[in-house]
Amino acid sequence: MTEQAAETGEHQPVKGPRIKKGLVVVNTGNGKGKTTAALGVLFRAWGRNMRVEMFQFLKHTGSRFGESRAAEKVGIPMTAMGDGFTWRTKNMESTQELGRAQWENCKQAILSGEHDVIVLDEFTYPLHYGWIPVEDVIETLKRKPHMLHVIITGRYAPDALVEFADLVTEMREIKHPYREQGIKAQPGLEF
Amino acid sequence: MTEQAAETGEHQPVKGPRIKKGLVVVNTGNGKGKTTAALGVLFRAWGRNMRVEMFQFLKHTGSRFGESRAAEKVGIPMTAMGDGFTWRTKNMESTQELGRAQWENCKQAILSGEHDVIVLDEFTYPLHYGWIPVEDVIETLKRKPHMLHVIITGRYAPDALVEFADLVTEMREIKHPYREQGIKAQPGLEF
Repeated sequence: MTEQAAETGEHQPVKGPRIKKGLVVVNTGNGKGKTTAALGVLFRAWGRNMRVEMFQFLKHTGSRFGESRAAEKVGIPMTAMGDGFTWRTKNMESTQELGRAQWENCKQAILSGEHDVIVLDEFTYPLHYGWIPVEDVIETLKRKPHMLHVIITGRYAPDALVEFADLVTEMREIKHPYREQGIKAQPGLEF
Repeated sequence: MTEQAAETGEHQPVKGPRIKKGLVVVNTGNGKGKTTAALGVLFRAWGRNMRVEMFQFLKHTGSRFGESRAAEKVGIPMTAMGDGFTWRTKNMESTQELGRAQWENCKQAILSGEHDVIVLDEFTYPLHYGWIPVEDVIETLKRKPHMLHVIITGRYAPDALVEFADLVTEMREIKHPYREQGIKAQPGLEF
């Protein structure tokens, strides 16, 4: 058996050292799968009867993407609070206020002790743009319940957050059909 | 607004060119989130009432990970066929046979026209080790229904598959708590 073969053992829950604690996880990078992987974790944890919740940043309050439909169908709480921020956004004050208000919701949830997994979706953007101080976030994460997992997604994860996090993955775009083949973003697969 | 800000538009279904087709998606790399992102897509597509199915390779037939529990709860078909292959595996013949039998199941499903999204989880390993010829896989994918999305996960995606695929993402490990901090793999979060 080769050394490489040994690595396929990754899919098995391996016998490891003893420490058990909730992790701070960051999914960042320019590729696909940051939000989707967080969604997969939520769904999997829900399958284990864990208490999960997802908070979305930037996306329009009340928006109905595939993930919110799926979450609603099974009873996973998922709330978007934003105004669909893009580069076209004019009213930046409202965008920032909504972001900060959503962070207050997250903070409450993180400190409530009522969750096993919390996802802060696209939370890196308000941090990157300085609407929410990263120090406030790290201070809050330091006070989180010991077993709570917090997953943060989005590009441009600030260095201080990456340094503080336990598990950081970069989703790197190797090949992308929209630019290369002119293919449309598609419901189900991407939103 | 900066150029970077423009990129945060990624979370919105942007108005794009006209081509609509099912994609061949590959999630590869040494990081976390390959299977989990595929699971997230399945869950999201299921939320849109799409017909989805997941085939797992290597994992023990009948194994009960978080994802299979979650899938079962909502009625997403998910079948594992394998013997829990790791570097400790002695009886490689059985591993290979199970892999090939599972591929026959996948092939049938891919060509049946009865699905919108099919996930072949950890399918890259049998390809990488040569148990299943990658040519056979590509020939099958060429004949897939036009709108069907097929998602393949695992390390060591063969070059020919990467070349054929529409969307390829590499999940890169930036920071990993098990090696660095000696933290155990944890239910819900990882399996």
